[in-house]
Amino acid sequence: MDGSLTVIAGGVGAARFLQGALAVVPPETVTILGNVGDDLAIYGLHVSPDLDTVLYTLTGWIDEDKGWGVRGDTSRALDRARELGAPAWFWLGDLDIGLHLARTERLRRGEPLSAATAEIAEALGLRARLLPVTDDRLRTIVETDDGDLEFQEYYVGRGHRDVVRGLRFEGAEGARPAPGVLEALRESAAIVIAPSNPFISVGPVLAVPGVREVLVERSAPCIAVSPIVAGEALRGPAAGMMRSLGHEASALGVARIYGGLIDALVIDEADAALAPDIEALGIHAVVADTIMRDAAAREGLARAALDAAGAVHA
Amino acid sequence: MDGSLTVIAGGVGAARFLQGALAVVPPETVTILGNVGDDLAIYGLHVSPDLDTVLYTLTGWIDEDKGWGVRGDTSRALDRARELGAPAWFWLGDLDIGLHLARTERLRRGEPLSAATAEIAEALGLRARLLPVTDDRLRTIVETDDGDLEFQEYYVGRGHRDVVRGLRFEGAEGARPAPGVLEALRESAAIVIAPSNPFISVGPVLAVPGVREVLVERSAPCIAVSPIVAGEALRGPAAGMMRSLGHEASALGVARIYGGLIDALVIDEADAALAPDIEALGIHAVVADTIMRDAAAREGLARAALDAAGAVHA
Repeated sequence: MDGSLTVIAGGVGAARFLQGALAVVPPETVTILGNVGDDLAIYGLHVSPDLDTVLYTLTGWIDEDKGWGVRGDTSRALDRARELGAPAWFWLGDLDIGLHLARTERLRRGEPLSAATAEIAEALGLRARLLPVTDDRLRTIVETDDGDLEFQEYYVGRGHRDVVRGLRFEGAEGARPAPGVLEALRESAAIVIAPSNPFISVGPVLAVPGVREVLVERSAPCIAVSPIVAGEALRGPAAGMMRSLGHEASALGVARIYGGLIDALVIDEADAALAPDIEALGIHAVVADTIMRDAAAREGLARAALDAAGAVHA
Repeated sequence: MDGSLTVIAGGVGAARFLQGALAVVPPETVTILGNVGDDLAIYGLHVSPDLDTVLYTLTGWIDEDKGWGVRGDTSRALDRARELGAPAWFWLGDLDIGLHLARTERLRRGEPLSAATAEIAEALGLRARLLPVTDDRLRTIVETDDGDLEFQEYYVGRGHRDVVRGLRFEGAEGARPAPGVLEALRESAAIVIAPSNPFISVGPVLAVPGVREVLVERSAPCIAVSPIVAGEALRGPAAGMMRSLGHEASALGVARIYGGLIDALVIDEADAALAPDIEALGIHAVVADTIMRDAAAREGLARAALDAAGAVHA
């Protein structure tokens, strides 16, 4: 692919896809639009779980088994905090806390999240550009039978076991795209929606005024990668959430959700039979191995998505 | 000594004196009124250096060589934060950060500092009662030739090298004594002003409306221990600060500063010659070894102060 690439990204799935993408195209040509709907303030720290998962994955610090956090991290600070009565539901390693300290200090001094993220990403050696979709406060609220839950309370605190009745993106209406976000979408040679949860990972990005509109009006090809394989999410609550929110938990359901926004959808070989129904929506269905088990598989999937971009462009 | 003891405390000197005091009287009968003028918000954390020095010293966690922080603490989190661009002037170990996380989380949830302090102190096994003098925001501002400095900027950031032209206690006028503070002063059998800097450690405590008034009207004896020995502070900038603020840098100068508030002043053997001048102020001068080099010396000094309380009371 020639030209620059913009990837709309959630957490683990997006990070692994991006790892493949950065092996296929020059990292400097890639802009990542990161989700901030799952950000939280805890112990006084500003934590951006999705941005950090992308950052750690792409700079080699990720704890690959967990999919988040820093490989081999200790937890001396948090263990002590818990001994002293701090809530125990959210785990933070020492090196990870170091990042949160650096970010929180910058935010306290009035820097926008995008600037703090850029500086930290540069210090960690990230060669792609990582942009939070907005510098304004945007928080995903999960509506459940037990009431409204803040995102991390739903996801980590309660193990995403609640049936999701609805989602709100608090602050989204007034949120402005961070500097560079709309430009990246407008000027990229291709746009990819990473294999992330359409509601809680991609949803907050699309909820920022301007983002969806620019996507609809784009001239560059936009390709999504289905996070649903054989009716299940490889990770996280996407499948159940699709069902409880009235969608079909399948790659076809994903295609319908992204209708009007994408030119092609990369689906897993296990879902090849859904290709005709997806094509019937006017979306090109690209069948590939979407299980990102290792570097080669991640690279292969990125290549399939970028080839699809070239194909629909041609 | 029978009955309860209240100690007005700053940082290192007070903590060492208190270590002696808790060996002499039942710890459960001791209330410590702690300075919060040097509290700071950094990296999003609420840090209370003086409260923590007292807490760590009295629960065996202190780094005795430095006088503050946790013995043997690592700094994985802060080292990482610095690699990622966080300011490097303020050092925090991992276990210490754990305490700040626990405290900050409680404050964020709306708990007052006194409640957060009590819970953390209990978790660390402190048997005395440690009360921040106020739950309200009170911050020591140091006036220098380079302008006004926040206390930790003056003390740690610039190594307390600036000539102190004046001091202000921001927020003091509207600060309310924390629950129990005035009661402790009113109901104690004895009050001790620990060997702390009269301006920046004891000053903020006395600046909280009600504290000085209750001290003036007290019926219990009040004994101070001079932090100045042979014209110098054993630690910190007290001597130079006394001079630049127009006082004599001596135990006699300390006696004058505390005039009207104390019945006796414990001075070092090196300053025995000042005793008559101190007595002439109507303050009983008690000569003792005030160098708190080890546990025995700390206990001896505490005993001298408490004996003085008994003597002036009798």
